[in-house]
Amino acid sequence: MTNDNMKIVTIGFDADDTLWHTENMFQETQVRLAEMMCRYADDKAVQDHLHETEVQNVKVFGYGIKGFTLSMIETAISMSKGKVTSEEIHEIIAMGKKMLKAPLTLMPHVETVLANLKHNHPLYLITKGDLLDQGNKVDKSGLSHFFDGVEIVSEKNQETYAAVFQRHAIDPAHFMMIGNSIPSDVEPVLGLGGYAVHVPYKSTAVHELFEGTIDSENFFEANSLSDIPRLVRKLNGQFTKKSSIVT
Amino acid sequence: MTNDNMKIVTIGFDADDTLWHTENMFQETQVRLAEMMCRYADDKAVQDHLHETEVQNVKVFGYGIKGFTLSMIETAISMSKGKVTSEEIHEIIAMGKKMLKAPLTLMPHVETVLANLKHNHPLYLITKGDLLDQGNKVDKSGLSHFFDGVEIVSEKNQETYAAVFQRHAIDPAHFMMIGNSIPSDVEPVLGLGGYAVHVPYKSTAVHELFEGTIDSENFFEANSLSDIPRLVRKLNGQFTKKSSIVT
Repeated sequence: MTNDNMKIVTIGFDADDTLWHTENMFQETQVRLAEMMCRYADDKAVQDHLHETEVQNVKVFGYGIKGFTLSMIETAISMSKGKVTSEEIHEIIAMGKKMLKAPLTLMPHVETVLANLKHNHPLYLITKGDLLDQGNKVDKSGLSHFFDGVEIVSEKNQETYAAVFQRHAIDPAHFMMIGNSIPSDVEPVLGLGGYAVHVPYKSTAVHELFEGTIDSENFFEANSLSDIPRLVRKLNGQFTKKSSIVT
Repeated sequence: MTNDNMKIVTIGFDADDTLWHTENMFQETQVRLAEMMCRYADDKAVQDHLHETEVQNVKVFGYGIKGFTLSMIETAISMSKGKVTSEEIHEIIAMGKKMLKAPLTLMPHVETVLANLKHNHPLYLITKGDLLDQGNKVDKSGLSHFFDGVEIVSEKNQETYAAVFQRHAIDPAHFMMIGNSIPSDVEPVLGLGGYAVHVPYKSTAVHELFEGTIDSENFFEANSLSDIPRLVRKLNGQFTKKSSIVT
């Protein structure tokens, strides 16, 4: 089967919380911050304030651990009404550094799935966030050899996807994006005429939350990355049996 | 004259402190930090400690304002022996945000020089740092239309330049890099067989300081960006007179 009659030619993967875990590390760190602040405010108040601070700061700090760390410090100062100690602030910076240095935990089946798909498809990793931090994670993951390109962008929207498609001569009509975020991985790609698969993570960052429904024939939900190779083969007409296929 | 007999075909520009000022903003912020810390330590001790902290943190934070802000907070805690107030730390974060939002000041002659070179040469902007911050600066500069590509990398070394050359099919033997940093803009490009022009900035970040001499026929020093078009034309044999040429 040649590329000409394949619906899906090129496949893009989100990284954080699609190929490896990160959200659990952010959430564990938030729990530690709330514990540290328990003299000043209850857990929920601290977490709510942190989320508000993150949302306010994202335009100036972008996504990533350094901006998150600065937002935690602002939250600690505000929730303690200035009583937070410099030892506590030092501890928050140490929590940020620990996150930056943390080993990666890959999602189940990642290597098998990438190796399987790589036989027939150019694969791209498309992730947003901090250039150094995301680059370090790609290195640590040991997965970079699977990818024809790694694209780290500051925001995932139609404009940035269109630039990636142009840079690599990718036809969006034959492109499938796989990720855990509806706003970042699904909507912009569907908007450009591509395919998208949502593989939900057990918990979702506040700025990635999505309410609503997606009405598109090009949109699929999967429970696990291990569902992807069968889905791609099905769409490309490479199955004769219709049983046990994720749609 | 065709590309085939031009020594210099493609030209790369560094951004910070080559096309626009940033180092003066870092240095002004350092002066403000030293003033804030004057109850605890003298200016020089604060600046020395900040430089040491930056050097220690660069591997985990990378280059950029967010990491610089976190290093300032660490310095304030350390130099005050923990006595720095939360108001002061809040003020340091505000200084970081102010830097991130600051308007750009272009270097003299930038637009004239880029417009002149663009007639005959593909131009690339190659800069290191924070993806969001550097991307915002390129947008603010109003210069992006001059460039065939903008590359934001986390470190400028032979490996990252080689990747840029490969991505854009640039022949290093006909490439010239222009920038204010010997380690980032000159050495790796000479090492790959290209040309480099050092345009020194009035002050240089500590991690860009260079001691030594460069022994290469492909290396040039210029006092101003306005010297570059003549240098390129001379190297490409597009001059008949030899007078008033920078070498």
